[in-house]
Amino acid sequence: MRSKIRELGVNIGKLPVGSKNCITDVEGVSVGHVTLDFPIDGKNTYACTGVTAILPHSGNLFKEKVTAASYVINGFGKTTGLVQVNELGVIESPIMLTNTFGVPAVTQGTLEYMLKDNPEIGISTGTINLVVGECNDSYLNSIRSCPVTPQHAKEAIQNATSNVADEGAVGAGKGMICFGYKGGIGSSSRLVTVESENLSYTVGCLVLSNFGESTEFQAERYKTIPEQKESTIKPTDGSIIIVLATDAPLSSRQLQRVIKRCGIGLGRTGSHYSHGSGDIVIGFTTAHKIPHSTKAFIETRTQLREDHVVMNLLFTAAAEATEEAIINSLSQATTTTGRDKHTVNSYIFGN
Amino acid sequence: MRSKIRELGVNIGKLPVGSKNCITDVEGVSVGHVTLDFPIDGKNTYACTGVTAILPHSGNLFKEKVTAASYVINGFGKTTGLVQVNELGVIESPIMLTNTFGVPAVTQGTLEYMLKDNPEIGISTGTINLVVGECNDSYLNSIRSCPVTPQHAKEAIQNATSNVADEGAVGAGKGMICFGYKGGIGSSSRLVTVESENLSYTVGCLVLSNFGESTEFQAERYKTIPEQKESTIKPTDGSIIIVLATDAPLSSRQLQRVIKRCGIGLGRTGSHYSHGSGDIVIGFTTAHKIPHSTKAFIETRTQLREDHVVMNLLFTAAAEATEEAIINSLSQATTTTGRDKHTVNSYIFGN
Amino acid sequence: MRSKIRELGVNIGKLPVGSKNCITDVEGVSVGHVTLDFPIDGKNTYACTGVTAILPHSGNLFKEKVTAASYVINGFGKTTGLVQVNELGVIESPIMLTNTFGVPAVTQGTLEYMLKDNPEIGISTGTINLVVGECNDSYLNSIRSCPVTPQHAKEAIQNATSNVADEGAVGAGKGMICFGYKGGIGSSSRLVTVESENLSYTVGCLVLSNFGESTEFQAERYKTIPEQKESTIKPTDGSIIIVLATDAPLSSRQLQRVIKRCGIGLGRTGSHYSHGSGDIVIGFTTAHKIPHSTKAFIETRTQLREDHVVMNLLFTAAAEATEEAIINSLSQATTTTGRDKHTVNSYIFGN
Amino acid sequence: MRSKIRELGVNIGKLPVGSKNCITDVEGVSVGHVTLDFPIDGKNTYACTGVTAILPHSGNLFKEKVTAASYVINGFGKTTGLVQVNELGVIESPIMLTNTFGVPAVTQGTLEYMLKDNPEIGISTGTINLVVGECNDSYLNSIRSCPVTPQHAKEAIQNATSNVADEGAVGAGKGMICFGYKGGIGSSSRLVTVESENLSYTVGCLVLSNFGESTEFQAERYKTIPEQKESTIKPTDGSIIIVLATDAPLSSRQLQRVIKRCGIGLGRTGSHYSHGSGDIVIGFTTAHKIPHSTKAFIETRTQLREDHVVMNLLFTAAAEATEEAIINSLSQATTTTGRDKHTVNSYIFGN
Repeated sequence: MRSKIRELGVNIGKLPVGSKNCITDVEGVSVGHVTLDFPIDGKNTYACTGVTAILPHSGNLFKEKVTAASYVINGFGKTTGLVQVNELGVIESPIMLTNTFGVPAVTQGTLEYMLKDNPEIGISTGTINLVVGECNDSYLNSIRSCPVTPQHAKEAIQNATSNVADEGAVGAGKGMICFGYKGGIGSSSRLVTVESENLSYTVGCLVLSNFGESTEFQAERYKTIPEQKESTIKPTDGSIIIVLATDAPLSSRQLQRVIKRCGIGLGRTGSHYSHGSGDIVIGFTTAHKIPHSTKAFIETRTQLREDHVVMNLLFTAAAEATEEAIINSLSQATTTTGRDKHTVNSYIFGN
Repeated sequence: MRSKIRELGVNIGKLPVGSKNCITDVEGVSVGHVTLDFPIDGKNTYACTGVTAILPHSGNLFKEKVTAASYVINGFGKTTGLVQVNELGVIESPIMLTNTFGVPAVTQGTLEYMLKDNPEIGISTGTINLVVGECNDSYLNSIRSCPVTPQHAKEAIQNATSNVADEGAVGAGKGMICFGYKGGIGSSSRLVTVESENLSYTVGCLVLSNFGESTEFQAERYKTIPEQKESTIKPTDGSIIIVLATDAPLSSRQLQRVIKRCGIGLGRTGSHYSHGSGDIVIGFTTAHKIPHSTKAFIETRTQLREDHVVMNLLFTAAAEATEEAIINSLSQATTTTGRDKHTVNSYIFGN
Repeated sequence: MRSKIRELGVNIGKLPVGSKNCITDVEGVSVGHVTLDFPIDGKNTYACTGVTAILPHSGNLFKEKVTAASYVINGFGKTTGLVQVNELGVIESPIMLTNTFGVPAVTQGTLEYMLKDNPEIGISTGTINLVVGECNDSYLNSIRSCPVTPQHAKEAIQNATSNVADEGAVGAGKGMICFGYKGGIGSSSRLVTVESENLSYTVGCLVLSNFGESTEFQAERYKTIPEQKESTIKPTDGSIIIVLATDAPLSSRQLQRVIKRCGIGLGRTGSHYSHGSGDIVIGFTTAHKIPHSTKAFIETRTQLREDHVVMNLLFTAAAEATEEAIINSLSQATTTTGRDKHTVNSYIFGN
Repeated sequence: MRSKIRELGVNIGKLPVGSKNCITDVEGVSVGHVTLDFPIDGKNTYACTGVTAILPHSGNLFKEKVTAASYVINGFGKTTGLVQVNELGVIESPIMLTNTFGVPAVTQGTLEYMLKDNPEIGISTGTINLVVGECNDSYLNSIRSCPVTPQHAKEAIQNATSNVADEGAVGAGKGMICFGYKGGIGSSSRLVTVESENLSYTVGCLVLSNFGESTEFQAERYKTIPEQKESTIKPTDGSIIIVLATDAPLSSRQLQRVIKRCGIGLGRTGSHYSHGSGDIVIGFTTAHKIPHSTKAFIETRTQLREDHVVMNLLFTAAAEATEEAIINSLSQATTTTGRDKHTVNSYIFGN
């Protein structure tokens, strides 16, 4: 069991972290993983992948939607569902993460899960929009064999808890590589408080990290041991999916402003948003639960004034939580061997 | 004095029109023109241009902003101020229209007007964002001579009233050409009502029309006399600025959805959003007055539910009001002679 | 067998049509359908749906990509693959159409098809981006039963020919409804020629139509018989997917300008891009075949000058071909009965 | 005379810098300043501002346009001209920088300059698009007095040379504040070479820095003396305009990808793209000179393949050059006193 970077004495940024230092610090948010780690044909074909589900709240997400936004940092990626998120500013399903070729299976499984809970979909009401993010784990995972099934998606959703999420080489992060070392799932959180106003908001971030060359990594920002094992991995088509959660009352326009700042944290780790990378941010706020249908024609929504300090603090929180989540994905991941005996070493921080 | 197309027996669309069939049907909205029509050097150089101001409400627009959105149908244009409208979703100044090279003077005049009313700008608070739309009237107007001055912008603002706006070859529309005939300012409005909910909203549109070739015009949609005088005008760099006002409670995201439908009305008249055209929509709603600064950290906003019929009715209203405003700009404009004895004939509708 | 609207004496627009009046007039483009039409459980559950594949050329699409662009008219839709199309400006797979809940199966089938042809994907090169558009056919199709399988996607691809495409209630169009009458697949084309330059380009359009209320339809634009059977369908979550193909040499920026004009044709039929509609355009040009990988660091591309008449003609062609393709989807579709004995009548044009 | 940060022994990034470490390392690019520094009324009103002009090449920019792109990092700003840059992907005028309320005067002066050189504009051809960026220098400059005149814009253009540009409190940078210390104009460059292909490109950056709070500055990244004088400045409505130039053959789509990475460099200095900041990037490449008009209907353009290392190197260059340009704006600026005896101290780097 490895450690979060903060436990190793490295503090990133200035804002205080939540009690779990995890996206689940945002009240109601839960995370579930299914990890696949088995030989497929007894030889070199190997399932080294998985599924991760992030649930904005524990209720029926279709019936009670959350305000959402997306931001494409670099669009060499296959994330689904963003067209509708952009148009309507809501998310109505769990946010799912998996490998690139697992997207159809995970979409299918999530669809089946949501249909079961909502028998009116496709009969008396419309359809449902599903959001599935992905990275390419084909160095470790036999991605062409498509080991992820719809059932795995359902299990990831059912596994979701509001505990501290497992990080590193778990769930969708099982086969991912970050800066040439083992990456995957990482998480962190920040607290934004304005005492004079008695306001307190939480910003939580969960990343699926799979980007960067070892030469790009800004190791000097984080305590690292000198005898680091050299990476020989040349990643192709890396990516990072960043999920940002908050409970601050924001419109989707405001939320998009906040999640755009996740790119700052990504850049500070050393990334240059490389050409072959699908660097995508998906954000939501739990501040409002928006009913799927209602007789009312007019809604009332609260939202933050943008001219006060709190907006800038949320921007800072998004940047800091993203950076720390990425570093946690490195500090928590363990050395992993996958297809064709490919091995990716963990990165060693600390003294 | 020419007529609105509806007075000639041509009804566009199905929704009812407001009492003035003008953007000023939206409570609080006012329109002012300054028209320039004089020889500059006694010979062929001629001022055939002007300024039009649309004021979202009669108060201090900087201190009480309105929710706003913009949409670029085709971006061969020089409209200013959209970067900030897109980021913040508000307008904090009159919306000004003029010729392409009048933009700096009109921006300067509007700036001076707003500075006078707001002595704290640039001292104890930040700056102000100004929105100026333009079309190229250089066939009739000696645009290189820049006859529009900052003073004209101030006068256009001061001239603003909530009466039925003058249309055709007035204000910024003085030198504009539409489908090869005399165009310029046109306006129309629509009412959206939901009796069961006791809801009633107004959608008003004002256009500055300066686009299209005569062969594109969908004359068959509108009663036209057979003996139409043929147009010999080949417009270059035509444009249309569409200002859409409403009092419906909409977020800037929702408002952008509504104003995107103005392109439908434009397309129905025959336009193909030609390459050299700056076809730009600026929308605002008077439903909320948003204070420039306030001690409160949290605001409450009302907004329409999008799943009820009213959103689609607003979409229809935007398309219909835009189409009728364009046709009104043609039906109200009078034959005009400008620089180098260039003459543009009015288009004759009706029997 | 029903007729194209042009065979009924209704001509839309002014530009000449191609010899097939079909998207397959663009050299190399082929279309394939798989239509599902069977009871699922012997009672009311019924498969009334299908898959349509549009292939930009007959070679290996991954190895020889085409310049592409997308444009979201209204984003209440679940089309996949657009993030990468927007970033890179290419399409590298067949463009697939199906029902909303068929997207995962069709993505999976298309993936398997492409993996088979390209054994290096996921091993020595990166992944592949798949583009799947959808509409909601749940009034006629038991969409919750997910009758579409990955195999159907492969068959649709294999069925593709450059003949005149079947239209109406076929392929993905089997269960679709347009303006309250039977819609589905429609196609049309336009020729853009500049004799003085010896230039000739083809613009082809194929739509999957599933939008609009009967009261919106601009019947007066198209010859219709007076005794039209009244529609009682209230569509929810309608949509239209528009695929625009050309052989004109365009950059992806230019191509996006062209496909944005498809919304003009859609608006002219009567649509107001309703709230619940996923109105999405996917465009490509076959003018360049772009190799997946090459040793060369620099490419040379031809592209049209935008200041000449040809760009505006392409704009006009996009609008006209879209409008006619939509009307063809109505004129070719036959009365269809699906789940729960739901029946949708065909619309009767002509005398 | 102060020093560039690199002369103080601080190296930012890994790529080599050009011979001037300035945007003028890009062949043909020139920079000119006009600095205003005088009392306006003898008492507290003071002109502490200026104009900076960046010319993509020394020819007639209207007749020979350059490929361009823009990217809005945060849109609380009033930069003009971006609508057309986004639509057409070209710049056809000098890129001008000034204070917020100097935009109309600078636009007017630049217009007059371009009209003089191009007598056909507004007569036999269309209009011209002008790009003017701005920051709010109202802490030091009496911005309400509008001391910048059209003549200053013309002088800045005429002053342009391809020498190492003056940096710090000069030109538009005269009154700007960065991280609570004196900022303004900064510049840097990077070389991207691929020896095996005999390719060599230059990336140059010039910034107008006016953003950030002193507590945000990542001082630890840059050698700073311990006894730094504390800043007491609380900036409102800060901004940064980033101009990125290159000679690499890129389409406007590719160029936008490159300039998006400037935000990485900005974030690394400590910025969180604060709410009140207009953080805007304008990019151009001199690789092609695009004629305003030509008889040819088809153009041939070279562009880089994106799958090779060179694209990622350009991304890195954009991030590094932006970061170093910002730090140079700090290291070169001298302590400045402006309106109402307001003084902003220079930041002291090095030992």
